[in-house]
Amino acid sequence: MRASELSYEAAVALVAEFAERLAQASHPTESLPFSAARGRILAQPLIADRDQPPFARATRDGFACRAAEAGNWLPILGLTPAGQPPAALLPPRAAWEIMNGAALPPGADAVLSYDQAETSGDPAKRKIRLLENYKIRPGKNLVAAGEQAHTGQQLLSAGTKLGALQIALASACGAAALHVFARPRVAILTTGDELVPPETEPAAGQIRNSNAPMLAAMVDAAGGDPWILPPAADHPEALDAALASVLAAAPTADLLLVSGGLSSGKFDLVQPALARAGARLHFSGVRMQPGRPTVFGELPSQSRSLPFVAAAGNPVSAAVAFAAFVAPLLAALAGRSECTPHFALARLAQATEKHTKPGLTRFLPARCSFTAEAALPWVDLIPSNGSGDLVALAQSNCFVLAPPSAQRIKKGATVRIVRST
Amino acid sequence: MRASELSYEAAVALVAEFAERLAQASHPTESLPFSAARGRILAQPLIADRDQPPFARATRDGFACRAAEAGNWLPILGLTPAGQPPAALLPPRAAWEIMNGAALPPGADAVLSYDQAETSGDPAKRKIRLLENYKIRPGKNLVAAGEQAHTGQQLLSAGTKLGALQIALASACGAAALHVFARPRVAILTTGDELVPPETEPAAGQIRNSNAPMLAAMVDAAGGDPWILPPAADHPEALDAALASVLAAAPTADLLLVSGGLSSGKFDLVQPALARAGARLHFSGVRMQPGRPTVFGELPSQSRSLPFVAAAGNPVSAAVAFAAFVAPLLAALAGRSECTPHFALARLAQATEKHTKPGLTRFLPARCSFTAEAALPWVDLIPSNGSGDLVALAQSNCFVLAPPSAQRIKKGATVRIVRST
Repeated sequence: MRASELSYEAAVALVAEFAERLAQASHPTESLPFSAARGRILAQPLIADRDQPPFARATRDGFACRAAEAGNWLPILGLTPAGQPPAALLPPRAAWEIMNGAALPPGADAVLSYDQAETSGDPAKRKIRLLENYKIRPGKNLVAAGEQAHTGQQLLSAGTKLGALQIALASACGAAALHVFARPRVAILTTGDELVPPETEPAAGQIRNSNAPMLAAMVDAAGGDPWILPPAADHPEALDAALASVLAAAPTADLLLVSGGLSSGKFDLVQPALARAGARLHFSGVRMQPGRPTVFGELPSQSRSLPFVAAAGNPVSAAVAFAAFVAPLLAALAGRSECTPHFALARLAQATEKHTKPGLTRFLPARCSFTAEAALPWVDLIPSNGSGDLVALAQSNCFVLAPPSAQRIKKGATVRIVRST
Repeated sequence: MRASELSYEAAVALVAEFAERLAQASHPTESLPFSAARGRILAQPLIADRDQPPFARATRDGFACRAAEAGNWLPILGLTPAGQPPAALLPPRAAWEIMNGAALPPGADAVLSYDQAETSGDPAKRKIRLLENYKIRPGKNLVAAGEQAHTGQQLLSAGTKLGALQIALASACGAAALHVFARPRVAILTTGDELVPPETEPAAGQIRNSNAPMLAAMVDAAGGDPWILPPAADHPEALDAALASVLAAAPTADLLLVSGGLSSGKFDLVQPALARAGARLHFSGVRMQPGRPTVFGELPSQSRSLPFVAAAGNPVSAAVAFAAFVAPLLAALAGRSECTPHFALARLAQATEKHTKPGLTRFLPARCSFTAEAALPWVDLIPSNGSGDLVALAQSNCFVLAPPSAQRIKKGATVRIVRST
């Protein structure tokens, strides 16, 4: 059960390695229509079912012809609008009127756009030729069949997150349904005698449970399927029963998040309860602020072990633990090929306060505005009253990472930020 | 009906101004539970229903006392765990054991944490005092009632997008349901005789309709409610009927997107159809590539006018028009306080090709990796075969904006990027 406190960097590396193993395990899959597939992860590579484009296609309205002949007067033998089969072989010294997106007649190797052509002859027997001083080369104003992709070519790899552009490509390949990974099921267990449901009027000494809806929304945003458990009271029996219910659940959970009950107090019962359930810890404590008591490990389950992250109960600690450790684990469980947390750089708009606890990596709630006028976006620190300050946290959209060694980071310094929402 | 071609910057400014007016109009609202509110826009300010925190709260486990007395041996008179009402007034020269998150007894002004205290006396009559060489000031290890927010204070403004942190704050305020703006309904009309549904095997000269699922996913991602209309054939009657069905729909659409039928060809019938429906155009053409034929205007409708954006039918043009013009309009219709498109800066990993059409702002499909090791993230141009190249587009996650004047942008140059997904 024992495991030691790690530095933030070591904890991130350990989780990343664990996530890589998770990602390689097999994950359940499902088929979804396009309309439900956005944000999901491809479980199979997307393969071109035909050439892209499937036929040589005009990219301008005009006249298909042979480029070498375009200086001569060419009779217009017919017209192909978009959506029609290509015409027969174009005879030498002839042109064929063609619309943007339509299939070229075989034999044609270029399209003379309307504004590059002069016309002559009576309306029934029109001829065209290239305007003087213009040049045209084979391939002009068309895309050859297969120029973008060939039948059988892999277009997207398994593990790709499906945005609108990927859904468009899949629909062009005739994938009426998309084979994606099922969303990992994430059990959320909040603990603490002081918690009452959000819709309740708290009595003296009580507070509303904001961690359960927060963690559920974070799980949802990260591609997981949140399962909020009834909050557990600060009693060993209540915690044992809650953990047992997660381990016995069908369908089984893929990840367990616990919040609360994790410092050194008399009622900090979560670590002992995890120990009784047979937990193997990968780390117990991270040298960061907030989030120092964060625990990461695995619980033995029927078929496979259940990874868990337990964080202190205050909202900023829980949000930091999610961004640092839960998000990469969830990405791996969801089958994503990229599992590391996404950092960005920004310029600090105010100096940080002095480090009261050197040796700890700090996460400072902040707000970054992406105006792109300056070389780097500015990030504003949000004055905060510590790790319980949900009011300040809700004004933030990121955390500034202050390294353990830094005494005070100056205004204008380049800092790393990690998204908090 | 006539309107002129604008520069990209002028078109963006015009849309931003229009969006601001849209945002000020009244929008329908609805109430949602927390679990369904993520990504939605607050329609009412969130007001603190009580002080935050609602009571003076310990932030460490330890002993509540008066800081000025902590150097003396103080008898421990009792214990308050989290969730219990605060104890009665603490007598002078006494301490009260207290758990992290619990309510302080009145009279106490500091918490001596376990590791700052020494204990003496038999277990039944324990006393504590501050360890030698330690100091403690009033306010230590506690948060005063109302220190983060006061009853009646506005915590989030209307127009705020609800992420997990904002949902957490709302739940702490007892907002069991969230009053948000209804998602704007966006009609999507794809046009073209060459289009067949994605699940169909295309005949010669036909292609699958990838724009409808792409635009629907983009609308969904931008907070709208997509309504895919049956694709319209390249016939005036078909287009008239399709536009009439949108204008007569109940519930009414808030925005109309049209793709296809917009260059200079014989079958480019969309502008005439819009004119027959009484369209007022704000611009007709933007000096950008791709997306030059993009049209923005309003159709007269029963109650109010229906704004529309019509883009060329190739996927890259449609995606660019969405990022540049539709996304800000949708944000305004959704009630968001921020309506401008989000740009970022990145460093170009490869030189661009020469500008074949100076005078046009170019959108180059690209992929940006946010590693945050360098001063700015690198952005890779994705080799593309023009505005029909959906295969290249689906590898991208952003567009590099190349200004109209630039001949060739050098490797390593700082460029603006706009998200494409």
